[in-house]
Amino acid sequence: MREAVVRAVGDALIEVGLAGLDLADVARRAGVGKTTVYRRWGTVAAAVADLVDDMVETSAPRADTGGLAGDLRANAELVAETLADPRQGRLLAALIAAAREDERTAEALRRFYAARIAVWEPCVTDAVARGELPAGTDAAAVVRAVSAPLYYRFLTSGDAPEQADVTRAVDAAVAAAEAGAYR
Amino acid sequence: MREAVVRAVGDALIEVGLAGLDLADVARRAGVGKTTVYRRWGTVAAAVADLVDDMVETSAPRADTGGLAGDLRANAELVAETLADPRQGRLLAALIAAAREDERTAEALRRFYAARIAVWEPCVTDAVARGELPAGTDAAAVVRAVSAPLYYRFLTSGDAPEQADVTRAVDAAVAAAEAGAYR
Repeated sequence: MREAVVRAVGDALIEVGLAGLDLADVARRAGVGKTTVYRRWGTVAAAVADLVDDMVETSAPRADTGGLAGDLRANAELVAETLADPRQGRLLAALIAAAREDERTAEALRRFYAARIAVWEPCVTDAVARGELPAGTDAAAVVRAVSAPLYYRFLTSGDAPEQADVTRAVDAAVAAAEAGAYR
Repeated sequence: MREAVVRAVGDALIEVGLAGLDLADVARRAGVGKTTVYRRWGTVAAAVADLVDDMVETSAPRADTGGLAGDLRANAELVAETLADPRQGRLLAALIAAAREDERTAEALRRFYAARIAVWEPCVTDAVARGELPAGTDAAAVVRAVSAPLYYRFLTSGDAPEQADVTRAVDAAVAAAEAGAYR
């Protein structure tokens, strides 16, 4: 039931945005009794936060290709595929918009990005341990550096990142990290 | 009069979003006759596009410090200040949200970013000419690389970029460009 409800919350968020979101509509979309939805989630903000928590729980593990560029490329491909996916890309954009209107959604989204970054950090700490990157490199900063240009393109132009963007994001993050820009 | 109206369009966009935007309300906020606003702008989409065009026209010229890092730092400071400004940061976030709902707003926003990038491109082409960067470096890509981490932080966490973010954005873009990641 939770799966149906969080999916319905996401669909509604994409279609009508946070301001138009209504738990009765969510219940109808999910094919679940209205009373059940109100009893379990209570408020729109709680339902949106639960959707985001579900995204954290169901998201992909990190890659371990044995090299920094390969690992960061796997991360960049995942981010690019997510943004290019018609539903997931629109859902992330809708959540980013919703986070500006509601502090609870903003907190949930910060938890989501913190969790995703934390999952991929070992790719960078492993590279530091292997001597591929300078000691003291901020692992989270390197992982965020891979996502940043892909999100920037997606959010400011509406265009999903392409393979060339993925390659550039990885090449740039590796070169900058090697040069010590993230110490 | 145009100044008062585009400011009112921005205020309304921040407060109620594109879906809630209404030209009669804009006229009231601007202290301008409703008929005048309808006659000159016609539609909400046209008024928002005019606001974005006004942002292009009134935005700051590029810096010329004589060196790539200094020029890119000036650009990064400008982007960070804009995002940290309570009104301008919220306005850009509101426009990015609005662009997903309306193609005309999306086109206006793409024009805005294209114009801002084009203004700063000579910093990079000058650096190539001075031999600071490899020949064939994509100037627009380097300028976008400076903005990307600042926007990413702002849009995914709600936090305005700080001085440390500015320094990192510049150091990383310069190192990656020097390594040829943007050829």
